[in-house]
Amino acid sequence: MFGSTFGHLLRLTTFGESHGPGIGGVIDGCPSGIAIDEELIQRDLDRRKPGAGLAGTTRVEKDRVSLLSGVFEGKTTGTPIAFFIANESQRSADYSKLAAIYRPGHADYSYDAKYGLRDYRGGGRASARETAARVAGGAIASAILAGAGAKVYAATEELGGLPVPEIDMEGAFERPYFSAHDAAISAWEEALKAARSEGDSLGGIVRVEVRGLPSGLGEPVFGKLDAMLAAAVMSVGAVKGVEIGAGFAAARLKGSQNNDPIISGRFASNNAGGILGGISSGQDIVLRAAVKPIPSISMPQETMDRNGNPVQVNIGGRHDVCAIPRVVPVISAMTALALADALLLQRRLLTSSVA
Amino acid sequence: MFGSTFGHLLRLTTFGESHGPGIGGVIDGCPSGIAIDEELIQRDLDRRKPGAGLAGTTRVEKDRVSLLSGVFEGKTTGTPIAFFIANESQRSADYSKLAAIYRPGHADYSYDAKYGLRDYRGGGRASARETAARVAGGAIASAILAGAGAKVYAATEELGGLPVPEIDMEGAFERPYFSAHDAAISAWEEALKAARSEGDSLGGIVRVEVRGLPSGLGEPVFGKLDAMLAAAVMSVGAVKGVEIGAGFAAARLKGSQNNDPIISGRFASNNAGGILGGISSGQDIVLRAAVKPIPSISMPQETMDRNGNPVQVNIGGRHDVCAIPRVVPVISAMTALALADALLLQRRLLTSSVA
Amino acid sequence: MFGSTFGHLLRLTTFGESHGPGIGGVIDGCPSGIAIDEELIQRDLDRRKPGAGLAGTTRVEKDRVSLLSGVFEGKTTGTPIAFFIANESQRSADYSKLAAIYRPGHADYSYDAKYGLRDYRGGGRASARETAARVAGGAIASAILAGAGAKVYAATEELGGLPVPEIDMEGAFERPYFSAHDAAISAWEEALKAARSEGDSLGGIVRVEVRGLPSGLGEPVFGKLDAMLAAAVMSVGAVKGVEIGAGFAAARLKGSQNNDPIISGRFASNNAGGILGGISSGQDIVLRAAVKPIPSISMPQETMDRNGNPVQVNIGGRHDVCAIPRVVPVISAMTALALADALLLQRRLLTSSVA
Amino acid sequence: MFGSTFGHLLRLTTFGESHGPGIGGVIDGCPSGIAIDEELIQRDLDRRKPGAGLAGTTRVEKDRVSLLSGVFEGKTTGTPIAFFIANESQRSADYSKLAAIYRPGHADYSYDAKYGLRDYRGGGRASARETAARVAGGAIASAILAGAGAKVYAATEELGGLPVPEIDMEGAFERPYFSAHDAAISAWEEALKAARSEGDSLGGIVRVEVRGLPSGLGEPVFGKLDAMLAAAVMSVGAVKGVEIGAGFAAARLKGSQNNDPIISGRFASNNAGGILGGISSGQDIVLRAAVKPIPSISMPQETMDRNGNPVQVNIGGRHDVCAIPRVVPVISAMTALALADALLLQRRLLTSSVA
Repeated sequence: MFGSTFGHLLRLTTFGESHGPGIGGVIDGCPSGIAIDEELIQRDLDRRKPGAGLAGTTRVEKDRVSLLSGVFEGKTTGTPIAFFIANESQRSADYSKLAAIYRPGHADYSYDAKYGLRDYRGGGRASARETAARVAGGAIASAILAGAGAKVYAATEELGGLPVPEIDMEGAFERPYFSAHDAAISAWEEALKAARSEGDSLGGIVRVEVRGLPSGLGEPVFGKLDAMLAAAVMSVGAVKGVEIGAGFAAARLKGSQNNDPIISGRFASNNAGGILGGISSGQDIVLRAAVKPIPSISMPQETMDRNGNPVQVNIGGRHDVCAIPRVVPVISAMTALALADALLLQRRLLTSSVA
Repeated sequence: MFGSTFGHLLRLTTFGESHGPGIGGVIDGCPSGIAIDEELIQRDLDRRKPGAGLAGTTRVEKDRVSLLSGVFEGKTTGTPIAFFIANESQRSADYSKLAAIYRPGHADYSYDAKYGLRDYRGGGRASARETAARVAGGAIASAILAGAGAKVYAATEELGGLPVPEIDMEGAFERPYFSAHDAAISAWEEALKAARSEGDSLGGIVRVEVRGLPSGLGEPVFGKLDAMLAAAVMSVGAVKGVEIGAGFAAARLKGSQNNDPIISGRFASNNAGGILGGISSGQDIVLRAAVKPIPSISMPQETMDRNGNPVQVNIGGRHDVCAIPRVVPVISAMTALALADALLLQRRLLTSSVA
Repeated sequence: MFGSTFGHLLRLTTFGESHGPGIGGVIDGCPSGIAIDEELIQRDLDRRKPGAGLAGTTRVEKDRVSLLSGVFEGKTTGTPIAFFIANESQRSADYSKLAAIYRPGHADYSYDAKYGLRDYRGGGRASARETAARVAGGAIASAILAGAGAKVYAATEELGGLPVPEIDMEGAFERPYFSAHDAAISAWEEALKAARSEGDSLGGIVRVEVRGLPSGLGEPVFGKLDAMLAAAVMSVGAVKGVEIGAGFAAARLKGSQNNDPIISGRFASNNAGGILGGISSGQDIVLRAAVKPIPSISMPQETMDRNGNPVQVNIGGRHDVCAIPRVVPVISAMTALALADALLLQRRLLTSSVA
Repeated sequence: MFGSTFGHLLRLTTFGESHGPGIGGVIDGCPSGIAIDEELIQRDLDRRKPGAGLAGTTRVEKDRVSLLSGVFEGKTTGTPIAFFIANESQRSADYSKLAAIYRPGHADYSYDAKYGLRDYRGGGRASARETAARVAGGAIASAILAGAGAKVYAATEELGGLPVPEIDMEGAFERPYFSAHDAAISAWEEALKAARSEGDSLGGIVRVEVRGLPSGLGEPVFGKLDAMLAAAVMSVGAVKGVEIGAGFAAARLKGSQNNDPIISGRFASNNAGGILGGISSGQDIVLRAAVKPIPSISMPQETMDRNGNPVQVNIGGRHDVCAIPRVVPVISAMTALALADALLLQRRLLTSSVA
């Protein structure tokens, strides 16, 4: 493979498949002296467990993370932090009938084109299970950011085409579907129930806001903070679009509307989403990610097998109806990883003299 | 700085400011034997010249590219390809009055926060002039892609909130504003004229389609082709949003609508935008980028100076009304660079045996 | 930390301390379809176990490697290969009295300068135990090289200043001390016995030869194969010098002596050590590494404590007398990792056409 | 190609061939505010000019460096620093008769194996001329190090097998052959005169000492400072061996001899060469590089042509007799580049708190 490592100075390398012994990762580059323990990571991991709410399946995953290195007496030592999450069940059999068929919307066809083989056992590295290692890594990144006074908030802003009426980020991790507002929840439940009964699935939009991030993060030209965040969030399988601040709406604004004036020493709006010229401005980072509907649906679909023959497939089993809410902590984690990396990169310039 | 290099196996490093001797770049990793000359690069560079159409200023830039290395008798030798574009005029004086003021929507404030200094001479590396080196690099990347049968098309799909009625990519580079369709052009000219008379500016949406790209490009997990493309395109200063295929619209589709069925051995739709699980599927790559309105406008704006005092600024001079069409070849170039890099990365897996 | 990852396209990331739960690593970038199992890795790991011969201590380490991912039915799948080796015993107490003292020849002082803290529990990442993860990674790299027909041989060429009379690489891994020749062994045993009785330690020279390596590996300028190998081998803690082919002796030869003539289509000598202009020539790679004597000795030594006060230290406990033979498989592994990486890098050029 | 970039946070990318328009490079990652101008770089470049002393040829190269970007009013701005050195003469004709012959000791054969083509015009990127860009880059790195109080000294310690009687680094750049001591010079002149009259060539040993380097530089495990320096110096074409501190001699010392005791708070010896566990200790860095004799000699040599036919070659023209002294500033430059990069990497840990 290649591509299982994210970051420059803070680097997360992940490993593992959904049907092997387990999944895990290694964070290299974490400064020493940061308070980390298994509970801190577990708390974030628990957020992505399915089974909570109508969006998920009835499968229960008991992900327990173990720290293998890099932490001593509750503090990071500066050495690589490795963690492991054992797989509870490994049911390759469930998937065997799909081994020779390219499921629509899945990576089956393109992986076959790349590697010349099918890992049909639950999607291999393309499986959503891979994202648990991102969440564990993100917990560590968040602890680094906390030391700089920054905190990442993530919430569901829209589900099945139904947006929240207004944004309230703070309580989102306590609400069903990590909703950005209570008022949308009952309509979402209706939509999810309907989709499930039809054997269909729904998408949505995830919103991230980062409070307290220092200004000056990001690198000019190719290393702009927008670009780093876009790569981070777009690397999540279900995400097909990313925008910063006003994003696509900015394309329809005039300059006089889109520019954020500074009145009495404070930015009076935040269409820039906290990033000017690729560098953080000290305003809140605002980012939105488009999450596509889950491709596994309980309906007959037209496709072909590995020999190119047309076939109809009906993906049985118990599948999630919507990647939300599971993907919300993943997008939050990727944001934290990108920003903590940018923070460490910026530190090399922190001292005024060369030494 | 840091961040002036893009790519893994095909790497473009750019340099230069708008008010120094010139700008340029180095491409390392280009295979040998590819037909490249100054005219090929010049053709792409000429596309981003201002002065063509109502969107641009009356400034005339005569960008002439010189090849400094890496090409012998019209073919690449496999060594680094360096190129240089001399600056015609270096008018620092024009900008000196802005030296102590943070222009709204510009990188002035955030660069100051990062480096503790202002390069007030036209924006330094945050200047749009930097993008000429990307276009030159993209011309070389396009030649690599052509050898694999792939071609990048880019066009303006929407300007000032006015979309084209339908998409016709092929002729776009010959049309005013690189429009994706003739029918939108007169309305765009009206909108640009009005914005100019108001001293305001407009944004738009750029569409990229890539034909003939081999399947199997991109890397799982963090190196997904979507993520690489998103980083490439988001690193262009004016871009605030990126989507692949159906993008944000996919968030409102059901799985049964968004999945691309394969009928009689062919994909029947392309909501995935040519990328499944982060790997190219052989379908056309489809990508859209949101371009914000140019922040330099001829209207009074509220801001502050370096001492934190509120000031009103009116950025005089002759400024573009819209980054389009200049940004279209830049986004095209970044797409080509990301894809040619992915092509070289994939080659390591081309042989069936280990040797 | 940072620096726990080695390689470009084949990347080994290691983790773990000698006194935590265990050590391990992740190999990313390994092609699919290569036969790998725990026994193959275990065989290489067993070679670095102490207790074999007079050089080692009486400590017995039962290193058992577990594969956590990336291998299915005995073949690599192309996904990251993670492995773990649990620590049998974690005796921090043994080392606590050294917590405030800088041991001569150890990393204690410089780590303290770097991180502002001491990980006194057996040296942390500076411990020789870290190298087990390199050996495991090297076993995988060797399997990649085997597919290209290349094999790495490593042997002890000199110990305690006593060189072997001649070089016979093939049988080295079966001989005591991995000696390059039987004839030196009894003299080495005498020297080791004497050093042990004096509480002192010995160094030596390790020789590596690589047979069957394809020509064309390595990159011009900064990525020369010599440079990659030097970095790989010099990253082993005990190594203080590296030379390729004639090495330092070449500095005393004339050009007419050092140049390797080609007679009847074959190189008639190999002073270049198989590398011309940084690129492999198809001749055997020949490399020699200087291994310093182990710094832990059972004699009083002058040093200082963390407060700068002069102290005398006598490092008790059971320590190895010589890093050889434990370091031989480590140097072999690092050579294999560097060459397998170069092999994958070269593959991007293997096809004659661009596609 | 690939491999034309050196460094992590301070990155030098070089380009250019000896028979194209010129050579040059780009330094990305240099902090702002450092005093740099063309004269500072030119001073270092002048040191590697041939024609000075008996070791060189009578060819006169007038290398004049031009700064293309990154410096404003005599100070770095933090943007990429590009520089260019035009080639005075481009005499491809001189080399054409060698186009089909593999010169012994040269990269001809291995480059052909790698790329399937010969760039016979003076060796292309394997030419010694490429090193001028390293020297220019090293001048910038040295300015960064100077800001931290560190200075790199380089000298010839041995030439043609004749060592200096003792080491005096300070005055070396003023002495013929950059000799580490006056007393060796006349014997070296004799040896060079004799080699020249025989049409032969000589090698030597270059010594580097770095004074004033802060402790704490270098990264554990694979990023050890020894490994970074070894890769930097081994990437110079003529170098076939590198050792740190006692180096190969350490392999023959006992631990009690090789350990550097600390007496009254100061290291009493420096067998470690200033690096403990891969991290700088604050002692002087001491490094020695073996320089092979120049392969171009005026004697008949056995070789083969591209068709595999045996031929005798006599490389005419005016060639240097010894790479020394030209290679001394190159090795100095590579040392400076590696250390300045390590300095910037360490800065990310400089602040005691996470922010």
